[in-house]
Amino acid sequence: MDFYQKALKSARKLPGKIEITSKIKIKNRNDLSTYYTPGVAALSLKIAKSKDKVFDFTNKGNCVAVVSDGSSVLGLGDIGPEAALPVMEGKCLLFKELAGIDAFPIVLGTKNVDETASAIKLIAPSFGGINLEDIAAPHCFELEERLQDVGIPVFHDDQHGTATVVLAALINSLKVVGKKMAEIKIVIYGAGAAGIATAKLIQPGCLVMVDSRGPINKNRKDLNRYKREVTEFKNYCQAGSLEAAFEAADVFIGVSGRGKLAPELIRLMNPKPIIFALSNPNPEILPREAKGAGAAIVATGRSDFPNQINNILAFPGIFRGALDARAKRIDLKMKLKTAYTLAGMIGKPSPEKILPLPLDKNVVKTISKAIVDL
Amino acid sequence: MDFYQKALKSARKLPGKIEITSKIKIKNRNDLSTYYTPGVAALSLKIAKSKDKVFDFTNKGNCVAVVSDGSSVLGLGDIGPEAALPVMEGKCLLFKELAGIDAFPIVLGTKNVDETASAIKLIAPSFGGINLEDIAAPHCFELEERLQDVGIPVFHDDQHGTATVVLAALINSLKVVGKKMAEIKIVIYGAGAAGIATAKLIQPGCLVMVDSRGPINKNRKDLNRYKREVTEFKNYCQAGSLEAAFEAADVFIGVSGRGKLAPELIRLMNPKPIIFALSNPNPEILPREAKGAGAAIVATGRSDFPNQINNILAFPGIFRGALDARAKRIDLKMKLKTAYTLAGMIGKPSPEKILPLPLDKNVVKTISKAIVDL
Repeated sequence: MDFYQKALKSARKLPGKIEITSKIKIKNRNDLSTYYTPGVAALSLKIAKSKDKVFDFTNKGNCVAVVSDGSSVLGLGDIGPEAALPVMEGKCLLFKELAGIDAFPIVLGTKNVDETASAIKLIAPSFGGINLEDIAAPHCFELEERLQDVGIPVFHDDQHGTATVVLAALINSLKVVGKKMAEIKIVIYGAGAAGIATAKLIQPGCLVMVDSRGPINKNRKDLNRYKREVTEFKNYCQAGSLEAAFEAADVFIGVSGRGKLAPELIRLMNPKPIIFALSNPNPEILPREAKGAGAAIVATGRSDFPNQINNILAFPGIFRGALDARAKRIDLKMKLKTAYTLAGMIGKPSPEKILPLPLDKNVVKTISKAIVDL
Repeated sequence: MDFYQKALKSARKLPGKIEITSKIKIKNRNDLSTYYTPGVAALSLKIAKSKDKVFDFTNKGNCVAVVSDGSSVLGLGDIGPEAALPVMEGKCLLFKELAGIDAFPIVLGTKNVDETASAIKLIAPSFGGINLEDIAAPHCFELEERLQDVGIPVFHDDQHGTATVVLAALINSLKVVGKKMAEIKIVIYGAGAAGIATAKLIQPGCLVMVDSRGPINKNRKDLNRYKREVTEFKNYCQAGSLEAAFEAADVFIGVSGRGKLAPELIRLMNPKPIIFALSNPNPEILPREAKGAGAAIVATGRSDFPNQINNILAFPGIFRGALDARAKRIDLKMKLKTAYTLAGMIGKPSPEKILPLPLDKNVVKTISKAIVDL
């Protein structure tokens, strides 16, 4: 693949995508005395007296840790912390380039939830926020639950970044096909981090979730706690077969990692089906095939097709806003606000244009302002 | 104090001394595909196959964590992680400015040694080295012991940085006064991080250590494990009183934090006494007073007197060399090599010139080369 070669060539020339730079130059003895000892003690004393002053006198308020245990990296799976590091550096690059946030990659040498939670809690005083990344389900859910009271926002992007952008895309897609959220049936295909978070965020009339063993329902004995919770949602529709799941559905959301969607299943759906085939690099179904089976709108995670559903549309603006507001957590209200704001940026959605482009410079500004104004 | 005001003014204008910058600009969709997904997967796959490739394809090999629990910050004591953050940022600034190293501050929300050791081990895969900073004795000793097998250098600068520069200063001072290390008696005043490490590194004929309760000796029942170990050194001279400790001593090394040295004690020492009064900002004795009591050479930790003994002369070059050599630890040989190299940079030492100046640009180059060549 061409991008693989380009990535290798670039990294060989210049390893690492980010670096630390000094805001200040140390030119002489006086600089040393001002910016290190004894001068720096003045800042420490102010903060020792009033802890919140750490936001005024250090970079904490603009710093985000991009934390991973390397257990679920891109489509590559459990490749460990070292191999996850290039991805985390890439994410940090995006934080800086898109939102001006100083993000630093922290990859952890453990896959034990207790150890991961403990390490993140302990390093939290250095940061203004924590972005969890590429941590496998169901660990990621437990981890995030345990970290909600750390005092700074902890946000698992694979869950909430995806869920938020999916909701934005859905809002605009429904406008295009003229349907209402409360009246539609949605099939979520994939019950990992992104699938579970999406199931929690969107509120369709009827929701069905499918994992690699078929539709999730109350009779299944093999469900983890998080999948079971979904089957207990008020709007959850139990389905016993794949065909029953797709029967009269209006929307398909594929977040399976490597699953496939057969065109025949689309043909079981209601008229004007909406197909989000979001797995990367291989969507559950290619846009051409989906259209062939009658899809009214197709979105993927890829940049080479129209309607790219990419977390980049959410996390930089959400974190920028949360840091600017000095929020203690990123709550449901912020995620909903982000989704509606993002959808609102497209004046008149059409089948080929349901979302802003990932590098649209207005996105971060608009979302962060919406969050600060909440 | 003037430097306090300058530090506050500067931090108010521009909080934080360092920032993350992108080595790469994200200008379009292709950049996104090259530097993030899918391109970045190529780097991850290489590292997943061969872990050591993480040094070739990421910034790990140039990254150092500056880690503190805020338990013993400058002269300020146990002020906690938030208040320690400005100091760690300052240290990171020095790492970059002096040695081109990308250092990131990590302040930990615990003072429990088990938790600290565990957190550092867990985050180690992100870094090429760990600089421990401002962690109180005796915790710092135990912590460092436990972390020696992490696979990357772990270096407690308050201990070894100080000990290394003290040894360099001592080597040149002995040349000036014409004495030999094996024949002299040294009093180390202060038995914290710097004192214990110095006691271990220097090898005088006779060593006495004094803490806030007086000379340390085998009869004392109140010694921690690390102080007790010192009394068991082959060259340790037991002393029952302060006077006995100073009697016929050749060198005084003050690393007490806030202790004082009475001129009368200098008068008990051998001719041509060497006085290193290193506590900051208040030396154990001022140079003028020490000279008045007969000192042949006086050094302090301050930049406004001659002979500044400052860790800056050691840690940037040691880490630069250790990273360049991809060393797994910073061992005794490296510390000794650093001390002798540093001393060797002064062709003809004199009472007012026993060490290079802290901002001498040749220091880092010379030390790092010496370490790489070991």
